[in-house]
Formats: sequence, structure tokens, C-alpha cells
Amino acid sequence: MLKDPEHQVAGHMAKDGRLGPLVDGEGQFFKPFQSNGRGESEDKFYKSFSSNKNVPDHIRRYFPVYHGTQVLEASNGSGKLPHIVLDDVVSSYSTPSGMDVKIGARTWYPGVSEQYFKQCLKNDRETTSVSLGFRHAGFKIFDHQESRFWIVEYKVVHRYKVDDARLALRKFVSSNSLADSLPNCAFASEVFGGSKGILAQLLELKAWFETQTLYHFNSCSVFMFYENETVLMKGGDDARAQVKLVDFTHVLDGNGVIDHNFLGGLCSFIKFIQDIHESLDKLYFVGHLTCVSPSIV
Amino acid sequence: MLKDPEHQVAGHMAKDGRLGPLVDGEGQFFKPFQSNGRGESEDKFYKSFSSNKNVPDHIRRYFPVYHGTQVLEASNGSGKLPHIVLDDVVSSYSTPSGMDVKIGARTWYPGVSEQYFKQCLKNDRETTSVSLGFRHAGFKIFDHQESRFWIVEYKVVHRYKVDDARLALRKFVSSNSLADSLPNCAFASEVFGGSKGILAQLLELKAWFETQTLYHFNSCSVFMFYENETVLMKGGDDARAQVKLVDFTHVLDGNGVIDHNFLGGLCSFIKFIQDIHESLDKLYFVGHLTCVSPSIV
Repeated sequence: MLKDPEHQVAGHMAKDGRLGPLVDGEGQFFKPFQSNGRGESEDKFYKSFSSNKNVPDHIRRYFPVYHGTQVLEASNGSGKLPHIVLDDVVSSYSTPSGMDVKIGARTWYPGVSEQYFKQCLKNDRETTSVSLGFRHAGFKIFDHQESRFWIVEYKVVHRYKVDDARLALRKFVSSNSLADSLPNCAFASEVFGGSKGILAQLLELKAWFETQTLYHFNSCSVFMFYENETVLMKGGDDARAQVKLVDFTHVLDGNGVIDHNFLGGLCSFIKFIQDIHESLDKLYFVGHLTCVSPSIV
Repeated sequence: MLKDPEHQVAGHMAKDGRLGPLVDGEGQFFKPFQSNGRGESEDKFYKSFSSNKNVPDHIRRYFPVYHGTQVLEASNGSGKLPHIVLDDVVSSYSTPSGMDVKIGARTWYPGVSEQYFKQCLKNDRETTSVSLGFRHAGFKIFDHQESRFWIVEYKVVHRYKVDDARLALRKFVSSNSLADSLPNCAFASEVFGGSKGILAQLLELKAWFETQTLYHFNSCSVFMFYENETVLMKGGDDARAQVKLVDFTHVLDGNGVIDHNFLGGLCSFIKFIQDIHESLDKLYFVGHLTCVSPSIV
């Protein structure tokens, strides 16, 4: 009954014989233990987090719900393997656009091997991590003109520069063709704005990161997604936009210090989202002025 | 009429024939141009900043006022040299305690030479920069028990670990001897707290850094200081605590991106100050309970 997830946008995907996660189509997501102890690390984090009474309830909703582990036949048929069982966060969405953004200017952390340190540092410098404090890890966007999904994978987004990163965020909330170099950001207000939008959720997370010293979320991603079907239907007024933190193979104890690396990157990411949301307001404002007195524009 | 500054706590000091800044004793501070173009860079920043209409007035007060440049005989007698002329921010303080904290987990930045990158990265990893998002650069604290100043210079604070960094911040606001390993934080509420205290000022700076994309303040320091004389005098109720940003030899244009490196480090520094301020509240609370009902403590 298990199958490859339809809406995964980044990370280790089950393809060409590679190991990847599975879903049961009924709301559960099975993530195979990653190699070199990373699976055990991630499971340890989920166990700690799900039982940690110091995590406020309003913050828990930004993490996939954990249901323990289960030994399953691996997606690539390589044998039995332990899997972390989580809520499949997009299972109730019919045509979700999703975007995975790795937060933090630095993916290495004190105590790692010199080899891992060098590899992370190289990736951080080659991508936008150092300059922006975040980097795209992959996305899947519904193209309303062509009625199909565009999938952009890691090997492409890895080469993104600052302008590409900004453009991708604009395309994520646009209704014109993704081939168009001028995304119209038609859904920016519905997806990013409002009391239930992405921006409000990111700001709630930010407030927690300003004081939480429980965990350091090295190499974690923000996964944000919304439902296109409601946008497509006239009268549909809830994009069901959501933010989830994902990928916890490198989480460490905070030891009384805030995760300034994640927080700084998150603030930069928020500013990018705010800029898109506010430029929309400006476009509207200019349009409004045009109606009243075209000569002053 | 020019002399060595009495209350400098970090940076290039005029000592043993080394070049350092000068003061005129009447409110002006003369900083000699640093080598390798750093002096020109810093002067360029001050020129840009002082004429930049996008910098809000309430933020300007966190920067030393700039009065142009002046060619002067160098402090070490090595000849004439251009100096940046600034307000001497501690000139009206008789016994100031001061602390210089370099903000940011990363002191290098995209575009620097490989040699500079490696040197900065080494320093960032050896000090608390990577782990805390800031590192001590030096401080001068008035010891109320011994009625003299303690000066701790860069070569000492460079070796600080997390606990040393926290302890130094506690000693900065304590009235017991600095040789004591349990600082009493007697002045924490007066120096850190209140509407005019260090914490309120840092939070105002933080709010600006969340949106400002004008400059990236690589390798900059927060210099915080207060007047001990008012604390010593009974009835003196204003520590005149102040925060200034200093050292702008590596400032770059923000190019539409916030300074997430500075912001993350600043938030971590703020959390350290808050922890000291709040632990004081707890001590007071326990003390209060003791008076009312000793048995429950």
C-alpha cells in the first residue's frame, strides 16, 4: 500500500534506485533512517521534541507530528530499514505548491569532522547561504497557465544567485506562466499575507527563536506550501498556506544559547517575503492613484 | 594638546610605539587611518552614513558623530597621518566602565581575499564568535571594592569560552570585587534595565536591523559603557548607560539584503543580557519570599 510521495520537493527522493521516503496515502509519511547515524540523530530529536514540555503548543504546529519508528521494506527494494513515521503534511492537499528553503548562513557547526566542515563551508559559499542566510533546496509550483507542476530540483537551485532566489519566491505566488520572467505575484496577499498566511507564521516562529535555547537547528529547512485548488475555484478564499520545519539530522542541544544562525537566516527570509508582499501593496497603491489622477504617476 | 584616550577598551591602542587614536580632552576623538585601505573604507562609511537620509534619527544616536578628517601628527610620532574626527563618546564620564563586543558569528564576507577569509574563519572558530554569535574584544571595569579599574585586553578575551563570556557580562554590572567568581550583578537593573538602559537600546537597534538593507556591518562592535560615579554617590540614579556601534573598516552596501549575520549575533547578545537581568528579578523574588515566609524557600 506504500508509495512514493507525490509532493516531495527536496531531500532524498526515491528515484533511479535511490532510497527515499514513502507515504501510505492516508496521512502518514515514512522517512527512512539516513546513513552515518543521521537517522538515529533525527529520531532522537523527534523523541526529545515531542516530549519536551518547554516547547509551547503554538510552536508544535510548525513541526510534523511524530508517530515513532517502524521497520519497513525500503523504497528501493534494498531490504528492511527503520523509518521515522510522521504526519504527511500535504496529504489533504490536491494540488499543492511547495518550497523547501534551508535556513542559516552556516550548515556546519562546532564539533563536526574537518571533512564535513569543509564540504558544508564550500556549499554555503557556493550557494546563497552565506550572502542571504538561506538557500533554496527545491520547489514544486503549479503553473496556472499550463495546468501542470514545475519541479525544480536541488542541482538547479544550488546554482541560484541572489536574484534567482528572489525570483523563485515571486514565482511561488504567481498566476502567470512560470516561464515568464516577470511573475505577477497574484496570490502573494492570499498566501503570504493575512492572519493565517506564511508571513504571520514565520513571525510567530521568529519570536520563539529569539528566546528558545533548547535546540540548534543546524541544516534545517522551512517547507512552505499552499493549496492551488482553492485559488483556482472562484470563491475559494483559503489557500491553506502552511509553514513546517523539516530535516533534523543535525539538531544539537542549545545549551543556554539561542540559535542565532537559524534566527538570522529566518529574519532575512522573512524580509524577502515581506518585500514581495509590500511591493504588491505598492503596485495596488500606484494603480489606485492612476485611477484618481493619472497625471501625477 | 592631544593625548592618548584614557578609556579605550579595545582596538588599536597607542602603546609601546604602536599607532593609536588620540583625544583632545574637549570631546573629540581622532582615529588614525588604518593600513591597507581600511582607513579610507571607514571614512567612506562615515561620510555615507552621516549624509544618508534613510537612516532614522533615533538610530543615529547609536553611532559616534562624524566631523570629517584631519591630518595630524601620529600618536607614535611616526609622522603626519589622516585621522577620522569623531565625538569622544566617553569624554563627559569621569569613571566609565566600558565593554567592546564584536558582533556576528562571521567576520569574513564574500569577496575578501583567501588569506583574510582563512584568518577570520580561524579567529571566529577559536573564539566564541561561531558558538555565540559574538565575542569579547576587551573591557575596562571599575572595581568598587578596590576603587580602581580592571582592564582586560584582547589577548585575554580571545581565549574566552562561553562561560567566561557570560561571567564577564555579569562582572560588568557588579559591585563586589572583580576577583570574586560570583559577581553580584548589583547594577544590572540600573545599567541593563529601564527605558533608558542598555537592553532598551539594543532592542531599538535590533528592530532597525530587522529591516535595514543599507549596510552590512562586518566585524563591527557594540561598545557599551556607563558612569560609575553616579552609582557611587548615594542618590545618583542615572548610570547614563549607552550603546554605540564602532569600527566600520569592513562595512559593505546591503544591496537589498538585511545584515543577518549582525542581527543573529545581536539577538544572541541581547539574550545574554536579558538572562542576567531576569536572573536578578528571580533573586529579588526569592529574597522577597524569604521575608514573608522563610519556610517555603
